Amino acid sequence: MAASANSFLVGNNTQIPSLKPKSTSQSLLHLSKPNTVNLAGKTKPVSVRCVAATTHVQDGARSGSVGGSQERVFNFAAGPAALPENVLLKAQSDLYNWRGSGMSVMEMSHRGKEFLSIIQKAESDLRQLLEIPSEFSVLFLQGGATTQFAALPLNLCKPEDTVDFVVTGSWGDKAAKEAKKYCKANVIWSGKSEKYTKVPPFDELEQSSHAKYLHICANETIHGVEFKDYPLPKNGILVADMSSNFCSKPVDVSKFGVIYGGAQKNVGPSGVTIVIVRKDLIGNAQEITPVMLDYKIHDENSSLYNTPPCFGIYMCGLVFEDLLEQGGLREVEKKNQRKADLLYNAIEGSNGFFRCPVEKSVRSLMNVPFTLEKSELEGEFIKEAAKEKMVQLKGHRSVGGMRASIYNAMPLAGVEKLVAFMKDFQAKHA
Amino acid sequence: MAASANSFLVGNNTQIPSLKPKSTSQSLLHLSKPNTVNLAGKTKPVSVRCVAATTHVQDGARSGSVGGSQERVFNFAAGPAALPENVLLKAQSDLYNWRGSGMSVMEMSHRGKEFLSIIQKAESDLRQLLEIPSEFSVLFLQGGATTQFAALPLNLCKPEDTVDFVVTGSWGDKAAKEAKKYCKANVIWSGKSEKYTKVPPFDELEQSSHAKYLHICANETIHGVEFKDYPLPKNGILVADMSSNFCSKPVDVSKFGVIYGGAQKNVGPSGVTIVIVRKDLIGNAQEITPVMLDYKIHDENSSLYNTPPCFGIYMCGLVFEDLLEQGGLREVEKKNQRKADLLYNAIEGSNGFFRCPVEKSVRSLMNVPFTLEKSELEGEFIKEAAKEKMVQLKGHRSVGGMRASIYNAMPLAGVEKLVAFMKDFQAKHA
Repeated sequence: MAASANSFLVGNNTQIPSLKPKSTSQSLLHLSKPNTVNLAGKTKPVSVRCVAATTHVQDGARSGSVGGSQERVFNFAAGPAALPENVLLKAQSDLYNWRGSGMSVMEMSHRGKEFLSIIQKAESDLRQLLEIPSEFSVLFLQGGATTQFAALPLNLCKPEDTVDFVVTGSWGDKAAKEAKKYCKANVIWSGKSEKYTKVPPFDELEQSSHAKYLHICANETIHGVEFKDYPLPKNGILVADMSSNFCSKPVDVSKFGVIYGGAQKNVGPSGVTIVIVRKDLIGNAQEITPVMLDYKIHDENSSLYNTPPCFGIYMCGLVFEDLLEQGGLREVEKKNQRKADLLYNAIEGSNGFFRCPVEKSVRSLMNVPFTLEKSELEGEFIKEAAKEKMVQLKGHRSVGGMRASIYNAMPLAGVEKLVAFMKDFQAKHA
Repeated sequence: MAASANSFLVGNNTQIPSLKPKSTSQSLLHLSKPNTVNLAGKTKPVSVRCVAATTHVQDGARSGSVGGSQERVFNFAAGPAALPENVLLKAQSDLYNWRGSGMSVMEMSHRGKEFLSIIQKAESDLRQLLEIPSEFSVLFLQGGATTQFAALPLNLCKPEDTVDFVVTGSWGDKAAKEAKKYCKANVIWSGKSEKYTKVPPFDELEQSSHAKYLHICANETIHGVEFKDYPLPKNGILVADMSSNFCSKPVDVSKFGVIYGGAQKNVGPSGVTIVIVRKDLIGNAQEITPVMLDYKIHDENSSLYNTPPCFGIYMCGLVFEDLLEQGGLREVEKKNQRKADLLYNAIEGSNGFFRCPVEKSVRSLMNVPFTLEKSELEGEFIKEAAKEKMVQLKGHRSVGGMRASIYNAMPLAGVEKLVAFMKDFQAKHA
């Protein structure tokens, strides 16, 4: 209760949050037109706009304690997903009037100096985080990774060109199917027959001799399969959908031609798609490419050809700042590794009560699918967890069971609580 | 100062907005750890999360007075543009924890019951506002109107089909150019030679005999030209880009095959595109259509095929609620008419000091471009207005001069202040 003990609101027609105050009465809060307040013995009239909770909350959140934010749930959703509490509080604080500009970020002209400073800072911080070489462009786009499934072949291929796909889950499969409209999409390996639980040994891949690019989904959100290293394309470039592990660990961008991903897992709200593309690959779009899918248009206009998703980009920028403040992606990876180890060890240590179908060497640090030996208890598991304020643990409908998505913003405390709950549940049902 | 006199915040490390309190000292606000407060004579410990300012502000704003929101500017940007103050305050209040869900709207799974309730309510309110017949689908998409410039012919035409375009400004022109990639786009009238200041008489339009649709931009944001009535297509359907006058007045949706628009002018932040499409037109997309541009995919999945721009849709929903509370679009139109009349009358009454190039009968209620007889004073006009907290009055770079965008959320007080400023400026420089 650290934060709430230090912040206080009195308002006429004030909207009271669902959190009921513990040490004052509801009626006091609805008191009409209070205009004097005694603060530590000083009585003065006051006139201050209430803007946001204190930063005290964020410190509590980061250290893993739920601190003043006890009304928050632990949100294990696969995306959109949890955002860092301090980022949300900052966004809340600035929502009505960004840095004294007299406007919300949502109201700013995308060509005005305020928003330009926001998008430029976001790009610059992302470049620092991922150490993006200068020969790469960073584009802030719309439409999700699914739009890129079409944009990639439209920008990188002619219709007669071959593209190789290594399919380790549903998203890679979708990418290949969409690409078939615009090039010769060649699935050179698929884990479908083994229910997407593996990444193939790279030396066994039979790559096409003239493929324009080799496509992978670096982390399969639904199946929890993550590339720990990357195959070398025999020809052409490597292209990776990193939607669900973007900025979760350091990545050597120079190994890729294009890295892309929706923001809504690790770095922001939905509605922003980030494309990191090597500049020499830009400018060869097929004639049928919609102008909004042409990398050249967005590159030449610094992502401002038309109105970008401004507020989403602003939120991503706040997350990038937060990741840098945490010490960058090496530190972030350590935290993610620790959380994932805790959860996978709990599964492994359950004597088969809990099971993870994914091959150990490629288990995702971000999305942890698991099942119960007694599958008839899965519904109860999910329901009881929700009662304990751990939500969105249901597995994807195509896989069943449970899935815990533990992106950057999931605090260690959330995983600790889940693991404790799993042990209790097992004890109860063993 | 109505609102701020009734709301009060004390916090440890509290972020103080740029607005300096008038009746208390800064040092008082930074007082460390206050934990007793005397309210109207009662001294009690309190522990309430500060969430947002009072709804009193919104009443002030709506009635035209700037009330407690004196730090706000009047934002005449063409889009993204001003949002209703009460909508921003509600969004601020709920940003950290939406209705006790323990999550921000930005963190919610788009398939969870919380977000489903938000998107369904948004659609239902929009249907009520525009009285959308049941044979139309409402889609919440991404990519702006510019993406629709491609999606429309891809969904409604075969490559050999003809489409007629009436081009009354830059956006209609862009729509026609993009459509050329996917059909025979035929510009049957263009106002370009007259610098886009007119709408043609409908009976003079030479429509193609077999056009699949007739495309108009119902309000040209840059040139300030607005259709007051709509042409009847000789063949096929009428398609309108309503990005910049969407929900600014009642529209007989049944006259159209498709109405579409970006949200960032009148109904929300950027990043949401709304498409209202007659259901029988869905399902005939060309084979080369990217899956994300196929209306059928979005219609079958209720705009949830992939992750939609959730927070933007939520904001649109808050705006729709607000418009309904105002009495619906008939009332909204009256307010918009009153604001526009005030501004156009000031221009007309200036004896040529101010000039609007647009033909009187088609002047936009939303975007008012104007110039100065002494064009060398335009820079000063814009600069001085900004000092008076009226911002973004510079005309589009392709047109020059000034432009005042006075969308739904621009209060009457903003236009009154602008008109008063114009008179002062004229007196000073006559």
